[in-house]
Amino acid sequence: MNEFKLPKQVQLCEVAPRDGFQAEKKWIPTEEKINLIHRLHQAGVTSMEVTSFVHPLAIPQLKDAEQVVAAVRHLPGLALRALIPNARGAERAFQAGIKEVKCILSATDAHSLANTNCTVDQALVRIQSIADYSQSKGIKATGSISVAFGCPYVGEVSPQQVERLILSYTRLGIQEISLADTTGMANPRRVFDLFGKMRDRFPDVTFSAHFHNTRGLAQANVLAALQQGIVEFDSSAAGLGGCPYAPGASGNVASEDLVFMFQEMGIATGTRLNDLLLAAQEMKKVVGHDGGSFLLQAGVPKKHEQPAGQTKEEKS
Amino acid sequence: MNEFKLPKQVQLCEVAPRDGFQAEKKWIPTEEKINLIHRLHQAGVTSMEVTSFVHPLAIPQLKDAEQVVAAVRHLPGLALRALIPNARGAERAFQAGIKEVKCILSATDAHSLANTNCTVDQALVRIQSIADYSQSKGIKATGSISVAFGCPYVGEVSPQQVERLILSYTRLGIQEISLADTTGMANPRRVFDLFGKMRDRFPDVTFSAHFHNTRGLAQANVLAALQQGIVEFDSSAAGLGGCPYAPGASGNVASEDLVFMFQEMGIATGTRLNDLLLAAQEMKKVVGHDGGSFLLQAGVPKKHEQPAGQTKEEKS
Repeated sequence: MNEFKLPKQVQLCEVAPRDGFQAEKKWIPTEEKINLIHRLHQAGVTSMEVTSFVHPLAIPQLKDAEQVVAAVRHLPGLALRALIPNARGAERAFQAGIKEVKCILSATDAHSLANTNCTVDQALVRIQSIADYSQSKGIKATGSISVAFGCPYVGEVSPQQVERLILSYTRLGIQEISLADTTGMANPRRVFDLFGKMRDRFPDVTFSAHFHNTRGLAQANVLAALQQGIVEFDSSAAGLGGCPYAPGASGNVASEDLVFMFQEMGIATGTRLNDLLLAAQEMKKVVGHDGGSFLLQAGVPKKHEQPAGQTKEEKS
Repeated sequence: MNEFKLPKQVQLCEVAPRDGFQAEKKWIPTEEKINLIHRLHQAGVTSMEVTSFVHPLAIPQLKDAEQVVAAVRHLPGLALRALIPNARGAERAFQAGIKEVKCILSATDAHSLANTNCTVDQALVRIQSIADYSQSKGIKATGSISVAFGCPYVGEVSPQQVERLILSYTRLGIQEISLADTTGMANPRRVFDLFGKMRDRFPDVTFSAHFHNTRGLAQANVLAALQQGIVEFDSSAAGLGGCPYAPGASGNVASEDLVFMFQEMGIATGTRLNDLLLAAQEMKKVVGHDGGSFLLQAGVPKKHEQPAGQTKEEKS
């Protein structure tokens, strides 16, 4: 019998408050955002991308970044992360009390221009200033690479291009890097191969994965990444999110679907599935829709049914 | 770098004409059924479960089994399979010209009683008579085990129970056995473990897998099964299907989603994705809905776009 190499534990980062909300045109009141972050925290979420410090005119939905962070930054055991596009964003994040900022970079110029109105090389200049600022203030800068598994504008993205960008990040002192399948073009073999190559090439980098479920492969891609030793994953309650500038993009993998898979496989997430489901239901109610969530539709199987609001961690 | 053990080729069996249609209350005209089977055949499908020879009062939708088979049995390169509940069904199938019949068995009495109104042991008596009849007529009998990865009525299903049923099948001379996740209770680790154990225990049995996507894990489950050497999978165009007697059940994994995953991973299916998508669209139009299909919603990524109706097999 073959061996199935799976970890005992994973670390999830909940991104609905950033990646989910930013995709919503209709204004979500600040108090609703704060309430939902509380609900997610109560479900056991320990890491969350709570907002983005972008220009209010670029993403009006997140113009309340400071207020949101002020209201949730002291929640016990919750590590906050904010996405930032430039040094001005890093400055705002620092002043708001954020300890970890995430830089964004696209694997292709076409996506970079569509998403952030600059080429990849221009984005690297911005990131240099973020890295400098962060180091001077003692906050952690992490990085992401969008469309790392394929680009909706140009198609294939070579491992060499991804390697080049990771190298650029590491030269700026950024050692925690997320590879993102922004529009659902990854497949398990590509995920396995790319993470394998990049882990071999950059043994000191901590990699995480960010998968969208556009073509139904997010969970299979997570399984492939797990087998390559990746244990950090982004997910979004109710499957909300998607890149507004990427044609055909749909939601992030739903946190409740991912937690369900891990729990079923006996892999600890620290999250309580039933409470997370309640938070996702609330999220769906507030936003008016979900972004593709199987668990919200099918529920947990009978063997797992138990009272909501429990505090003991579930065992599969 | 670790090794990702994947096959070069898989064999899919298209089950929409049986598993999909039987779940539809609204009558689908016989000529529409035949047309859809032709469309699937034109897309490169080489194995299909075309109907079920059950009593017309039990599943009125499939009362035209004989007519459907008569119209498609001579399609070149297409192996037909029919589901049968008893020896009378096997007799009808044989008379219609079917060369392969599939027996059904549930892993639990609760599901067996709900699905076929008999206990597991009573079902085995029926299967004995099917096996005897099939052997006397020289047609192949294969078997399936429903709810093999978990039962919506009783929860966990032990590997010992599955082993016992496989043993019963083999004693009747049935050596091709499908393990079915009828209501989406499987997870990749369970799939990997169960197939691993059963392949070790029954090296002469050819196993196949039948996954529903109730909780979004069908593709990940396929990936786990692949790594255990399973290369035969059922799928349903447009994701149609589901067990009408199983609470919470939703569609089979969509053929187009599964073919997309295989194609992306460089695993040959013999199916032309674009033609399959057209067939699935037609299926959705005829039936009035799909059963959960990502590809019907998101389409193929840009790098794969090419004219429909092509005859050359696509390369990923």
